[in-house]
Amino acid sequence: MAKPKPIKINQVSKDFAKQQVLNNIDLTIEPETIYGLLGRNGAGKSTLFNIITNRIPLSGGEVTIGGQTVTDNDDVLNRIYLMSEANLYPSRMRVKEIFKLTTQLYRGMDMRLAQTLAEQFELNTDTRFNKLSTGSRSIMKLIIALAVDVDYVFLDEPTLGLDANHRRLFYNALLDSYAKRPRSFVISTHLIEEVSNLIERVWVLQNHQIIVDDTTENVLNKGFAITGPAADVEAYTAGLNVIGHEALGNLRVQYVYGELDGDRPIPDTISTSHIDLQRLFIYLTNQEVVTVEN
Amino acid sequence: MAKPKPIKINQVSKDFAKQQVLNNIDLTIEPETIYGLLGRNGAGKSTLFNIITNRIPLSGGEVTIGGQTVTDNDDVLNRIYLMSEANLYPSRMRVKEIFKLTTQLYRGMDMRLAQTLAEQFELNTDTRFNKLSTGSRSIMKLIIALAVDVDYVFLDEPTLGLDANHRRLFYNALLDSYAKRPRSFVISTHLIEEVSNLIERVWVLQNHQIIVDDTTENVLNKGFAITGPAADVEAYTAGLNVIGHEALGNLRVQYVYGELDGDRPIPDTISTSHIDLQRLFIYLTNQEVVTVEN
Repeated sequence: MAKPKPIKINQVSKDFAKQQVLNNIDLTIEPETIYGLLGRNGAGKSTLFNIITNRIPLSGGEVTIGGQTVTDNDDVLNRIYLMSEANLYPSRMRVKEIFKLTTQLYRGMDMRLAQTLAEQFELNTDTRFNKLSTGSRSIMKLIIALAVDVDYVFLDEPTLGLDANHRRLFYNALLDSYAKRPRSFVISTHLIEEVSNLIERVWVLQNHQIIVDDTTENVLNKGFAITGPAADVEAYTAGLNVIGHEALGNLRVQYVYGELDGDRPIPDTISTSHIDLQRLFIYLTNQEVVTVEN
Repeated sequence: MAKPKPIKINQVSKDFAKQQVLNNIDLTIEPETIYGLLGRNGAGKSTLFNIITNRIPLSGGEVTIGGQTVTDNDDVLNRIYLMSEANLYPSRMRVKEIFKLTTQLYRGMDMRLAQTLAEQFELNTDTRFNKLSTGSRSIMKLIIALAVDVDYVFLDEPTLGLDANHRRLFYNALLDSYAKRPRSFVISTHLIEEVSNLIERVWVLQNHQIIVDDTTENVLNKGFAITGPAADVEAYTAGLNVIGHEALGNLRVQYVYGELDGDRPIPDTISTSHIDLQRLFIYLTNQEVVTVEN
């Protein structure tokens, strides 16, 4: 089977009423790659997902796959699945009937995997959709997302409200499913640290634009905490891309995103270390620097 | 000011219809202590909170504070605040009016702190409650929970739906507020790893009962991962309290909760390490052992 073509998001913009939500977004979704779409609440992540999957119209730009526009193109859209908060199923339909419906709406579904996952998540497939708890609805959608035969899966806050056991089960099931049938996943989540080992590439959406589009490895390599006496830390980080700081008495931590200056020797009084993805995200997207003094 | 008396939960049970939700719960909430109430979805955490704060009746047992029963005792109840998903406010009331109402319903509220937090969380206090997004409603309730003058604060999934920045702001604000005015917090959350540095004592609710009631330090000291060749690991952990395992080819990890056997020498082929609170919780509360083989 030939590899699917990448999805190209070209100069996509979106306004609601007079409010701009997305401003000239350029992204490429390569086949067989796992992405993390990170952004503050209200940053426009769901809007971007809805545009890529043709659920809402865009205000400018285009989304294409292999040169074909995605808009209203069923041949293309049945290779793309979006799991979101929206409940699109007939409310009295049973879970197992929804699984069957999905096989018809897309190119098919791995019913054995769906059944196994339903057992692991303790989801009764005889239950009607309108009798499921909020948590069970999320689980049903997650199972469909992992079992449906598509090339691109978009997951909008897939683990919201799930307990730690079910989140872990989902992450493991996703990696397992990916290993058996590589395809692309784009995951939008606020639980950044929990997905940092899953995602190969990081996108950060902030102020209507993509401010980070890089491999997870590169992003982590660019994040530094520089710690030491305030005067030394400030002198050393002058001219670097400082994205935040903390003060603890006389000690200062400055967070830097980017390269350190190779020509500038690091004084003995200062220590440098890398920081985790969630903390890096927080500093990159804080409108103002949060100072914690205890 | 005299220290408040502890809240005693004595043999509390709760049935809904014919279903048992809580079975003989015994707990003590000491003053000026931060607790984590951990449990799977549906374990009965919200029910326990609702009983302690007298929002629903109990089926058996009693909740007392300083010998007085909490049930229908306004003198006692205005020293206890529960932040939950329930929306108890007049829908057209503005945020700042809800703050004022709170000062009347309880013994008061730190309005300066509430205003500062509203600014930090970017919550407009002129907005009417029914115009707030779900996220903003949570933020409003969090602010009240941190500013209201009570001795006991119960927080039911306080950070659900909050982005990483707002979660961090909340954790810092809680610690800051606790340092200035020590009181008791009981936090129920699925984001266990994020609160593990906050909570002094851990409660785990499972199968309608409390299965762990210990200091966070003790709980962490009792959790072990024993890794090595399968035969050696199984021989060494025989008779210990094994709560889970993972297999990776020939290698085996067994998770143990409790003391290791001091008399039994650890073979050179085996390594032991501690595990984090979230992972420990997952193994303690999994009905069956999840095996991940890649």
